[in-house]
Amino acid sequence: MKFTVRDMDIATGGIHIAILNEHDAKLLDLHMGDRIIIKGHPRELTCILDVAKSHKAMPCGEIGLFEEALAALKLKQGDAVTIRFTGKPASVEFIREKLLGTPLPYRKFFEIINDITHDRLTDIEKTYFVAACYTHGLSNKEIIDLTKAMVNTGDKLNFGKMVLDKHCIGGVAGNRTTMLVIPIIASLGFTIPKTSSRAITSPAGTADTMECLANVELNEKQIKAVVKKTGACMVHGGAMSLAPADDKIIDVEHPLSIDAEGQLLASVMAKKYSVGSTHVLIDIPMGKSTKAKTPKEAAHLKEMFEMLGKHLGMKVKVIASDGSHPIGYGIGPLLEALDVMAVLENKLDAPQELKEKAIEMAGTLLELTGKVKNPMQVARHSLESGQALKKMNEIIDAQGRQKPMQKAKFHYQVFAPKSGKIIEVDNETIAKIARVAGCPTDKAAGLYLHKNVGSKVTKGEPLYTVYSQNKLKLDLTKVVTKETNAYTIK
Amino acid sequence: MKFTVRDMDIATGGIHIAILNEHDAKLLDLHMGDRIIIKGHPRELTCILDVAKSHKAMPCGEIGLFEEALAALKLKQGDAVTIRFTGKPASVEFIREKLLGTPLPYRKFFEIINDITHDRLTDIEKTYFVAACYTHGLSNKEIIDLTKAMVNTGDKLNFGKMVLDKHCIGGVAGNRTTMLVIPIIASLGFTIPKTSSRAITSPAGTADTMECLANVELNEKQIKAVVKKTGACMVHGGAMSLAPADDKIIDVEHPLSIDAEGQLLASVMAKKYSVGSTHVLIDIPMGKSTKAKTPKEAAHLKEMFEMLGKHLGMKVKVIASDGSHPIGYGIGPLLEALDVMAVLENKLDAPQELKEKAIEMAGTLLELTGKVKNPMQVARHSLESGQALKKMNEIIDAQGRQKPMQKAKFHYQVFAPKSGKIIEVDNETIAKIARVAGCPTDKAAGLYLHKNVGSKVTKGEPLYTVYSQNKLKLDLTKVVTKETNAYTIK
Repeated sequence: MKFTVRDMDIATGGIHIAILNEHDAKLLDLHMGDRIIIKGHPRELTCILDVAKSHKAMPCGEIGLFEEALAALKLKQGDAVTIRFTGKPASVEFIREKLLGTPLPYRKFFEIINDITHDRLTDIEKTYFVAACYTHGLSNKEIIDLTKAMVNTGDKLNFGKMVLDKHCIGGVAGNRTTMLVIPIIASLGFTIPKTSSRAITSPAGTADTMECLANVELNEKQIKAVVKKTGACMVHGGAMSLAPADDKIIDVEHPLSIDAEGQLLASVMAKKYSVGSTHVLIDIPMGKSTKAKTPKEAAHLKEMFEMLGKHLGMKVKVIASDGSHPIGYGIGPLLEALDVMAVLENKLDAPQELKEKAIEMAGTLLELTGKVKNPMQVARHSLESGQALKKMNEIIDAQGRQKPMQKAKFHYQVFAPKSGKIIEVDNETIAKIARVAGCPTDKAAGLYLHKNVGSKVTKGEPLYTVYSQNKLKLDLTKVVTKETNAYTIK
Repeated sequence: MKFTVRDMDIATGGIHIAILNEHDAKLLDLHMGDRIIIKGHPRELTCILDVAKSHKAMPCGEIGLFEEALAALKLKQGDAVTIRFTGKPASVEFIREKLLGTPLPYRKFFEIINDITHDRLTDIEKTYFVAACYTHGLSNKEIIDLTKAMVNTGDKLNFGKMVLDKHCIGGVAGNRTTMLVIPIIASLGFTIPKTSSRAITSPAGTADTMECLANVELNEKQIKAVVKKTGACMVHGGAMSLAPADDKIIDVEHPLSIDAEGQLLASVMAKKYSVGSTHVLIDIPMGKSTKAKTPKEAAHLKEMFEMLGKHLGMKVKVIASDGSHPIGYGIGPLLEALDVMAVLENKLDAPQELKEKAIEMAGTLLELTGKVKNPMQVARHSLESGQALKKMNEIIDAQGRQKPMQKAKFHYQVFAPKSGKIIEVDNETIAKIARVAGCPTDKAAGLYLHKNVGSKVTKGEPLYTVYSQNKLKLDLTKVVTKETNAYTIK
């Protein structure tokens, strides 16, 4: 049966929804919630059926499709499509098996990931998959299989024989070293195409932060051009089709801030494998609010990353760093981007801890290649001589420079309740305040830390400033700042 | 800020969605996916924001709402509402705790169940709750707390001092004894108001089957009138506000056919407690495809139900029955309803096993009351004398008789591949075929079993007939009937 496309002109998330008039649905014996396949020319797409009760909302003979479905099918208002009923994909049964505690083989992971990639699973089904992997965990073999399934359901890029990469598993507010390491490495003639996710549980991911300076939503062709020109890029991985299931899984992890180990490992390594990385540095910050809380946990993650690297044919170097407190002054996409630029520009008031950590990371990665003598000094020279800044500007221009963003409209300061020495600044509380303020969607939202661990303060001195574009959200942060102590002063 | 309601004239499931024009959303600094509270007069409702890109799809100053939200808010096109931003409810954090493996206290279950009742949680959040309870399990205390939370977030009914009830935990195809036990018990002057769920993993629930004969979607006032008139009812519990969260939880269990023990216990007992049941019979069929696969598992469930009964102040009797094979001839709402009526009408070709099981159940429940001598004989007499049929017709008329339904348009027969004795008929395969055929949504879909366990068959004799209103779905069942053997012949 043929239907004429009606553009609903509305964007929705998750699986695609198609709307038919009640009368048409009845004729085809289709019900709300049924899965149907919509066939355009030449693409097809699985949608969940919704039913309109009136001819005004959806006339007979028409099918209502939303923005994402129209884009996926390359259709516009008035085009003709055919539809047919389809049952649940077999992968739903595999998800059920995992939820019952049965380990899955590669074939079943591939089916699940392939169906996620092609939007054939609903949010509910995807959520069960994430919950199942999270609560039952994944064996080493399952993590390798999940990684390979993610890679094999997407595109692979080839940037040459030696491709460097750097990744931080997060948990430390303001820890934006990637955006310094990339220009340092690239300024020395190495190839380092960096794809990043957006924030899952943190106030800002590298992609969110870089987006304050440059366009990060580049397609494959654009990325290749940027890397060819500059030797590097800093883009959002989700914009390409590299392990495309990853972002769709993150979409359902987000609402509960789930961050499962197996998925974390697969997610990181699949991205690296898809861009053909040969030398990878992974930073594991250690601290009470990071993924690795103890040296033992950090050693475990190190082992897992190295195991995966070995199975995928990559040289992987893992370093455990100090993740006990925020690094840099700014927390939130724009405020972190400003910190990064201050370091690259060698400004006097730039955050020194961020600079030193970036140099250490870059030096370690250079060392891993075996191609550079005195790697630490070389990295420092690139940064302090302005070479890295020059490279950063090249990358920004190649990706498409953003017009400078304004600081947030609203802000307030939080003051020291007593005099003393700051013995702790809690990453989790800082992240929570930033997220309630609107991070990462509100790029200008976040915190600016006037003081950090080790500083002495006098009662009434400002500890930090909270920013937001939304007065309501800023007011909500006051509940958090009152209830919890981001700073411990003794 | 005030908005004018636009009736989208479309029904959706799950949490409510509200649509604003992009321009209005920007003005209020609201983003797609934000939670907003819509305030009408006097009700308010939490919705998830969606954004329309054009004025045609949603003009500025208007807010698009779907059927369910309009019904919940008692609003119509053109009414004025105000909106405000709201953060995630605290219950999301409690769900996260449970997912991490932390047992929850009553207070947190109440918050979660209360938010589910009032549609303040998304499908993704509800799914994490179900998955967390399923994979980590629930302690006895948690099950009691969950049950109480379900009861206390809904209405409670009071039908008098002695209220009987009967429940089967399912797993056996065609096992429609409830619809026989209720009229038998009520014909003897007892009060037995039965509320049922719709099918979760089975081809038909009692509510789905009864709906082939009578209206089951009654409100509280209507149910009270039916029970006052007839001493009984057989209605869909979801139509009232008795433990209303239950059906909303089932909505997200459905896609993966999840049926978790803790939730099962809480679901059953909350419904019984809400209608003021004092004497409850619970049937636990035992077999390889039922919830209780072994006498040990049945004993465990028996203990759990009795423990809950004690804590909630109900007399609970649990019997483990033979659940090894389908009972009755029909599988699917209409075909099962026809079986029930054949037994009540004492037809010669009525399924005898269904009849005998119903008499045993009714007798056991009568015995539990301590008010009836020779309970088994009394139950049999009610059925064979036509008393139960008379009561059934009273109940049907009081609820609102359905016009007789037609058998399904399409069907085919499956024949014995060889001669021999039928040593097994697999409940799960039978249920799968029936569900692929369209059960329970398609009421006429299902199977009619010509032969059952113990019968001798000759090669080529019909074993069963598959029915469906949808040719496509009927064809899909052929894949299942080919790949799996519902019948084992030796």
